Amino acid sequence: MDCIKNRRTIRKYKETEVEASLLNELLEEAFRASTMGNMQLYSVVVTRSTEMKKKLAPAHFNQPMVMNAPIILTFCADFNRFSKWCRSRKAEPGYDNFLSFMNAVSDTLLVTQNFCTLAEDRGLGICYLGTTIYNSEQIIDVLHLPELVVPIATITVGYPDECPVQPDRLPLEGILHEESYHDYSEEDIDRIYTFKESLPENQNFIKINQKETLAQIFTDIRYKKEDNENISECLMMVLKRQGFDKKG
Amino acid sequence: MDCIKNRRTIRKYKETEVEASLLNELLEEAFRASTMGNMQLYSVVVTRSTEMKKKLAPAHFNQPMVMNAPIILTFCADFNRFSKWCRSRKAEPGYDNFLSFMNAVSDTLLVTQNFCTLAEDRGLGICYLGTTIYNSEQIIDVLHLPELVVPIATITVGYPDECPVQPDRLPLEGILHEESYHDYSEEDIDRIYTFKESLPENQNFIKINQKETLAQIFTDIRYKKEDNENISECLMMVLKRQGFDKKG
Repeated sequence: MDCIKNRRTIRKYKETEVEASLLNELLEEAFRASTMGNMQLYSVVVTRSTEMKKKLAPAHFNQPMVMNAPIILTFCADFNRFSKWCRSRKAEPGYDNFLSFMNAVSDTLLVTQNFCTLAEDRGLGICYLGTTIYNSEQIIDVLHLPELVVPIATITVGYPDECPVQPDRLPLEGILHEESYHDYSEEDIDRIYTFKESLPENQNFIKINQKETLAQIFTDIRYKKEDNENISECLMMVLKRQGFDKKG
Repeated sequence: MDCIKNRRTIRKYKETEVEASLLNELLEEAFRASTMGNMQLYSVVVTRSTEMKKKLAPAHFNQPMVMNAPIILTFCADFNRFSKWCRSRKAEPGYDNFLSFMNAVSDTLLVTQNFCTLAEDRGLGICYLGTTIYNSEQIIDVLHLPELVVPIATITVGYPDECPVQPDRLPLEGILHEESYHDYSEEDIDRIYTFKESLPENQNFIKINQKETLAQIFTDIRYKKEDNENISECLMMVLKRQGFDKKG
């Protein structure tokens, strides 16, 4: 399974098309992932047309991959299909709540990752766009997502036209906990983050952004408190709009 | 990549131990999954001891896999480590909000699915316990999870001692949408669910539960509206308790 070990995110793609038959095969295999009670609480919207890519691009902050990749896949948490099935079968669905949303999110992300692994194994490259939940309202409008459907993950897919270096990862001991969670001491944090902080590219980030530490790049530039709080509000509104806010 | 296509959930395991070196190798490879801004917003708690399994079992409704599997892995959304790093580097973290929780959930589930694929490829069997977010408060107490850490997925792991039949999946056309979401008509629902409803085991479920339709098994017995709403409230309380409820 070297495709996982050696993987890197691909942001530049060849113009070669991805055959519909290959895409369908990969998706069908991906749907073998574990799913809550075999409900398969997801839908996948495939974007190939330039027109739709243009509409989606702003939701992804116009990252160039959206226009340049042959395929964009939007993986959505979906309790609409299942609820419709219930209603047409004399059963009253009760899935318009936060727990059901989270169950659908789980199903969706497991399938997303399965798809990525399968695609990479077949020589495709993918980029995971973390922007999906940032601008979910726009995506809902563009893709016409009905109630009980929320976009969770977007993947750009195509044949790689670059081979970037693999990014660093924290040492295993920084993530693994034996039997119970061992909270991090100041020394633990120093040890776990030493390698990341020592990398020339990270040193350079600090310099060009005129910051004192790498962490400040995250808190002051990339993932700011104020932005996070504003988007949290928007995301809560989206759950309400899509009907996942029912209380007991 | 036949291990994904041919996979089945394994609930019965041989007594053979899973070597720590193998587990570590699989986890390290799994951590190659895409992660938001390379923040790696997860922790994994490994349970091997009988004592800890006993404590975890009730949170998973005493499903026998928890006691019988050699290893239980609890994958947690974790913004604690990252926030600690920020604080010790003169940076003020702003990740105690719902968006940050969802970002950590994404990171966590991508890694979880990567781990499952890698484990299955090496001959191990896994079972995904959907109960984790149902009783997250209990799990938080048992595993001593601090603020900004929430258990999201639990996997039991071991060498398979069974080979169950593969469960059905909906046809691809029921899940895939070209260019935009095409909502389901009554006829679509009939077509998509025909195969599932025709299966002898599902027919039998209806009979032994004295129900009229398969959907009623879900709405009236397995995933009830009232339970979903109560657990939604609990889950919201857990986000508050773990400090992910900060508003702007």
